[in-house]
Amino acid sequence: MAKSKVLLSITGFNPQRWQELLAAGRDVVLAPERPDDPSIGYAVVWKQPPGVLSRLPNLKAIFSVGAGVDHILADRTVPDVPIVRVVADNLTQYMTEYVVWRVLDHHRSGSAYRAQQKRKVWRELPQRPAQDVTVGIMGLGTLGRASAAALRSLGFRVNGWSRRAGPVEGVETFAGEAGLNAFLNATDILVVLLPLTEATRGIIDYALLKQLRRRNGLGGSVLINAGRGRLQKDDDILRALDDGTLKEATLDVFEVEPLPKTSGLWTHRQVFVTPHGAATSDPNHLVAPMLSQMDAHDGGAPLKDLVDRASGY
Amino acid sequence: MAKSKVLLSITGFNPQRWQELLAAGRDVVLAPERPDDPSIGYAVVWKQPPGVLSRLPNLKAIFSVGAGVDHILADRTVPDVPIVRVVADNLTQYMTEYVVWRVLDHHRSGSAYRAQQKRKVWRELPQRPAQDVTVGIMGLGTLGRASAAALRSLGFRVNGWSRRAGPVEGVETFAGEAGLNAFLNATDILVVLLPLTEATRGIIDYALLKQLRRRNGLGGSVLINAGRGRLQKDDDILRALDDGTLKEATLDVFEVEPLPKTSGLWTHRQVFVTPHGAATSDPNHLVAPMLSQMDAHDGGAPLKDLVDRASGY
Repeated sequence: MAKSKVLLSITGFNPQRWQELLAAGRDVVLAPERPDDPSIGYAVVWKQPPGVLSRLPNLKAIFSVGAGVDHILADRTVPDVPIVRVVADNLTQYMTEYVVWRVLDHHRSGSAYRAQQKRKVWRELPQRPAQDVTVGIMGLGTLGRASAAALRSLGFRVNGWSRRAGPVEGVETFAGEAGLNAFLNATDILVVLLPLTEATRGIIDYALLKQLRRRNGLGGSVLINAGRGRLQKDDDILRALDDGTLKEATLDVFEVEPLPKTSGLWTHRQVFVTPHGAATSDPNHLVAPMLSQMDAHDGGAPLKDLVDRASGY
Repeated sequence: MAKSKVLLSITGFNPQRWQELLAAGRDVVLAPERPDDPSIGYAVVWKQPPGVLSRLPNLKAIFSVGAGVDHILADRTVPDVPIVRVVADNLTQYMTEYVVWRVLDHHRSGSAYRAQQKRKVWRELPQRPAQDVTVGIMGLGTLGRASAAALRSLGFRVNGWSRRAGPVEGVETFAGEAGLNAFLNATDILVVLLPLTEATRGIIDYALLKQLRRRNGLGGSVLINAGRGRLQKDDDILRALDDGTLKEATLDVFEVEPLPKTSGLWTHRQVFVTPHGAATSDPNHLVAPMLSQMDAHDGGAPLKDLVDRASGY
């Protein structure tokens, strides 16, 4: 019996490389022949058009091209089949690099030194040891835990918060609504790696930022969001920067992407903007494991890295 | 019998905090009462005035305030007593932070993203996985080995070069003149943490930079010098940047410090300048171990972390 087809449904970027690599294992289509196309067994998607998956009679699983799956669940008609998230060393490593890079750039006064260089100022700035700095990570999935380990090995204190925080080695963890303020009150540098769900939408608002630790002298609190843009309220971040609640921010994600030219975040001198590129899914690393999972599943094996539909991640 | 005195001889920065902390253990003087002052048993120095140590009859050891000791040996009249280098977790950690920070900023296209932000350009830049990038570290002492370990854990390939390279876990090592070109030919990002000696003065010149690997597409070779300024030739670095031999450079040290306002390095857009602050000696961490060593040595114990006078480090 021939293998079922893969529907590759990508919005917002060129699917060509994904298509080529998937085609090494299965027939690939970019759209169903008809809404109830029976030849499609699996879907590989990024922001699929709403409804495109809902009537496929033989769809066995949906594979997300990104670490988050909010882009899939935004389509309320997604059928009740397993959703497989991307878990790839490659993606985890890129995110860890990004988080370590940005924590160090804030910790080592990167922007202040760049400003000094422009004025040819030779002056050493005060430097706090990493042991005196607490990085608080919101989101303790694969990405959050990997970033925590890397930051710990550089000497930082690391705390973590998630909805249902389990133990993480060397990390003090805080759970749920009840633990949030205690977590924030102890955080100097906040790193956001949460999934986007109904419970986390807009969580990074002014009131939350107000709870971050602010200390005299060295430091001042810092926000790094490399999760999802709709976790944050862009305007609240600007307000917090302008009134001193936040010292600096690194943002890889935004409420609206691409970030509109009119946004004050582009030009704010305490903000570093990257274009949602902290950890990009690389088809060269991700397609082969997807094809393997499809074949194994056809042979009766359980799928790995499944999303919990109830919690949304 | 009273403990012998400590001569604290510092040029270029305020010795006050060092003086206060040393005074907790011994009488401290900032200059000998007379050239052959017999009350001085130890010296703690940074760029001592030439000759100040040469006639002290009871000087038992010299403690360096910095990781390197070239500033001590530049005085040809330094007496033949043991020289103790600084080896402090604190200093090692600061240097590791700096090296990891700068490697990541180059690896993740920090300057290109900052330039894009100024023009409000939302465009993801190509990103090479760390496994495809070789960081070559010149100097495999405490600082070089710590940086190597941190970079390896982030996924980079790490090679190392030193005069008499011994094995370093997970690092391919190259030794001496004979191994230098092979080391350079395989290096994408060169990190310089060498001691300054007669053998290494000016070693980072145009001919050396020409040997670095240059690859098409992504990348281009990068220089990071956090060792000593006189290891490098400032003008050769500028030439290498301007003709494409080097893509970017991070320099914490310079031939002349403070870096003169007339230097083209200040304004070169591919250069990041910091004011010799990669890893600053913190008296709060360093003085207590120095006092302990002095007391232990008075009691007959051997000194630790001694400099090899013949090799100059």
